[in-house]
Amino acid sequence: MAKDTKRVEQITDMDVDFAQWYTDVCRKAELIDYSGAKGLFVLRPYGYAIWEKMQGELDRRFKETGHVNVSMPMLIPESLLQKEKDHVEGFAPECAWVTYGGSEKLDERLCIRPTSETLFCDHWANIVHSWRDLPLLYNQWCSVLRWEKTTRPFLRHREFLWQEGHTLHATAEEAIAETEQQLEIYADVCENLLAMPVIRGRKTDKEKFAGAERTYTIECMMHDKKALQSGTSHYFGDGFARAFGISFADKDNTQRVPHETSWGLSTRTIGGLIMTHGDNNGLVLPPRVAPLQVVVLPIAQHKPGVTEKALELVERLKKAGLSVKADVSDNSPGWKFAEYEMKGVPLRIEIGPRDIESGCCVFARRDTGEKATIALDSLEACAIETLDAIHDNLFAKAKKHLEDNTFDAQTLDEAAQIINEKGGFVRTMWCGDLSCEEKFKEVAGVSSRCIPFKQEHLGDTCACCGKPADKMVVWGVAY
Amino acid sequence: MAKDTKRVEQITDMDVDFAQWYTDVCRKAELIDYSGAKGLFVLRPYGYAIWEKMQGELDRRFKETGHVNVSMPMLIPESLLQKEKDHVEGFAPECAWVTYGGSEKLDERLCIRPTSETLFCDHWANIVHSWRDLPLLYNQWCSVLRWEKTTRPFLRHREFLWQEGHTLHATAEEAIAETEQQLEIYADVCENLLAMPVIRGRKTDKEKFAGAERTYTIECMMHDKKALQSGTSHYFGDGFARAFGISFADKDNTQRVPHETSWGLSTRTIGGLIMTHGDNNGLVLPPRVAPLQVVVLPIAQHKPGVTEKALELVERLKKAGLSVKADVSDNSPGWKFAEYEMKGVPLRIEIGPRDIESGCCVFARRDTGEKATIALDSLEACAIETLDAIHDNLFAKAKKHLEDNTFDAQTLDEAAQIINEKGGFVRTMWCGDLSCEEKFKEVAGVSSRCIPFKQEHLGDTCACCGKPADKMVVWGVAY
Repeated sequence: MAKDTKRVEQITDMDVDFAQWYTDVCRKAELIDYSGAKGLFVLRPYGYAIWEKMQGELDRRFKETGHVNVSMPMLIPESLLQKEKDHVEGFAPECAWVTYGGSEKLDERLCIRPTSETLFCDHWANIVHSWRDLPLLYNQWCSVLRWEKTTRPFLRHREFLWQEGHTLHATAEEAIAETEQQLEIYADVCENLLAMPVIRGRKTDKEKFAGAERTYTIECMMHDKKALQSGTSHYFGDGFARAFGISFADKDNTQRVPHETSWGLSTRTIGGLIMTHGDNNGLVLPPRVAPLQVVVLPIAQHKPGVTEKALELVERLKKAGLSVKADVSDNSPGWKFAEYEMKGVPLRIEIGPRDIESGCCVFARRDTGEKATIALDSLEACAIETLDAIHDNLFAKAKKHLEDNTFDAQTLDEAAQIINEKGGFVRTMWCGDLSCEEKFKEVAGVSSRCIPFKQEHLGDTCACCGKPADKMVVWGVAY
Repeated sequence: MAKDTKRVEQITDMDVDFAQWYTDVCRKAELIDYSGAKGLFVLRPYGYAIWEKMQGELDRRFKETGHVNVSMPMLIPESLLQKEKDHVEGFAPECAWVTYGGSEKLDERLCIRPTSETLFCDHWANIVHSWRDLPLLYNQWCSVLRWEKTTRPFLRHREFLWQEGHTLHATAEEAIAETEQQLEIYADVCENLLAMPVIRGRKTDKEKFAGAERTYTIECMMHDKKALQSGTSHYFGDGFARAFGISFADKDNTQRVPHETSWGLSTRTIGGLIMTHGDNNGLVLPPRVAPLQVVVLPIAQHKPGVTEKALELVERLKKAGLSVKADVSDNSPGWKFAEYEMKGVPLRIEIGPRDIESGCCVFARRDTGEKATIALDSLEACAIETLDAIHDNLFAKAKKHLEDNTFDAQTLDEAAQIINEKGGFVRTMWCGDLSCEEKFKEVAGVSSRCIPFKQEHLGDTCACCGKPADKMVVWGVAY
């Protein structure tokens, strides 16, 4: 009977071809499928369930900090997109354009939102009048579309799911504080939910968002030592508000222009999750974001009482608040082991006739492969403890990887040599000039990832031009 | 100070101009704003919060019945849309077409999904192989786009939010049972969350969904006695599966074609909610769907201890699981009363110095306007009881309205006279012929709303042609 079921096929070795390994995992773990339109992907139930977990955690934190959800239109009239100059320059080249409604050619073409700053501002111009209307702390869960040339599952979709927060404040100070607060929420979710250590910092002017005064970012290091920008927040000053004619009567009755922010985190971060923790057996999910935290597998399940016992363990663990199921299908234990390893389920519990007899079961950890015999009496406590230990181990491993592969350099040549020989991140001092930043790209093939909030004084001069420098920058090859 | 805040303006009398009353409520209760693209609306925080409540209740019920969420692309290649004939005929005239990606003209144009049957089938053709892969019980939360000519807030958007369930089954029986089960979930949510009584039934062939074999519907009666279709489920047979080449190896190893369903409920139902319960003071929200169930208003709040007491009540009610806030702004009590009436908050609690002295507060019900003095000792129990009573009253009132305005007729002429003089729904026997159905439209201006599951034998002959008839149909003017 088991023979006609799908097989768990081999995936490419991650150390042989990391890109192919990644694509294999996305498909074999049933996270994603390709669609008929290039660059648009199907998020399958297992992939979408990871996003739902992330949504739940982010949405809770957004609401706790006073934000409310809204829904803006998906289409932007071309004239509206053009109202803010830097913004339209950044996004127009990658817009998808609607030119026909039914059989009728439109007078003005509409783009599918690549991001929604223009829509929020257009709405706010209607509803903001007084200081009493501020701050506006809005968020929306939606998908946006950017006409990318090359696409990859999660990392670069033409359409991707995200949340985009947009807020409006009476003062610059308040808006900047919001921008920093939301970045910290992203960092918290990355580290404490996804077990991905982050570098918090500010983007250089070259790398900031189109139309922003400042962009903050969290940067993560993947298994192949490349960087993934995993969440950003932007302070816009009053540029957008002026362009859209938003103003308010302040307490002293003078008319003022408010300050704006936006911040976003997308399904791209799921790509980061895969590339941070995965291994040659497939996906490895940190327990707090795993749609299925525990799978219970009966061994010799045809023997009396085994299936019942497995289902009993499931009920006990459910009551303890865990996400758990038993697989009592007629597939072989070997097939099941491989299947749930591929899917990255953090904890596998095996229970057979002999275990039942001796009042225990076997815990097998996905992260380390370690097995332990556990007394059934302490099932719940041990499961919770093990899941926490798995999270901590995954985080510590990723943090060590980041630290072991981050190097300091005094000169551009030194930086280029490190990148060339070892890969990873390089930290140097930088004078702040665009020309030096461009030179890093040219010579070392790296872009500035960020100017970390936690600065260290590595020297007094720019690694590129030798002029005085007071900023430490992290450089790397980015996805 | 209070003078510079927005005022609660008058809304049109609902008995003078119901359509204008409706639009006024949508805007003044801050549910919606218009956008720069015709027919695309902004769902403001208060409007979106209603949708979030509905989402939560529906999503929970979907998951309890074994469904999982996914995310499909928003764009459909034209060739894919054309694979099922009836379906493309129904939807192509109202598709929005993307013809450019950036500055590049596309080889094949893409439509923004008007609904996603074609996308689900295209994906399923990739992943369905064996009977073990079935059933597939999928749902997605998203927006879809239909290029409507006339548009109205909630009732007819070019873009609207909805959920669309899509399922695939080994047998017709299973698929039909699913179609019925999901309709029952919609009916349950309408009645028990939204306090909207429904008529459950089956659509005639004329009114069914493009490509479906059967469409089931729940129909509600609005305050103006017109009908609103509030949720539908469709059984497709194996038509789509054949068109998309989906088949599976059954247990006996023969290759079979699976059966498909889909079902959807949209933000349109929020329009129904407004038109079912609203009154001349604005929105009236049933307590279980109200984003804010209770508002506490301090009276003479400058007096010592009043604000503190109001906040204390809020904390107590929060602990009891209610959604509640106090408005301690410097707006006048009169302004606040009008504001929360406009927003349809089910229960207003007033508390002033004299109430505090005598250990009580005042409950004011939004639905009836009744006031009652409540001992603070029994605050939580009374609040919960009152909210339940409000739900029951709103449901009973709407049910009476539906029953009082549903009439039986023996002939088409009689039906036309009733519709003309009284409005509402008319029930007649019907032979099943399309020509008779069209005649109802022509003569009485009504469409068939449904063939109710609960049939009554009103006679032996069709009200139109006089031929033998065994189906009772509900007719009405629909939104």
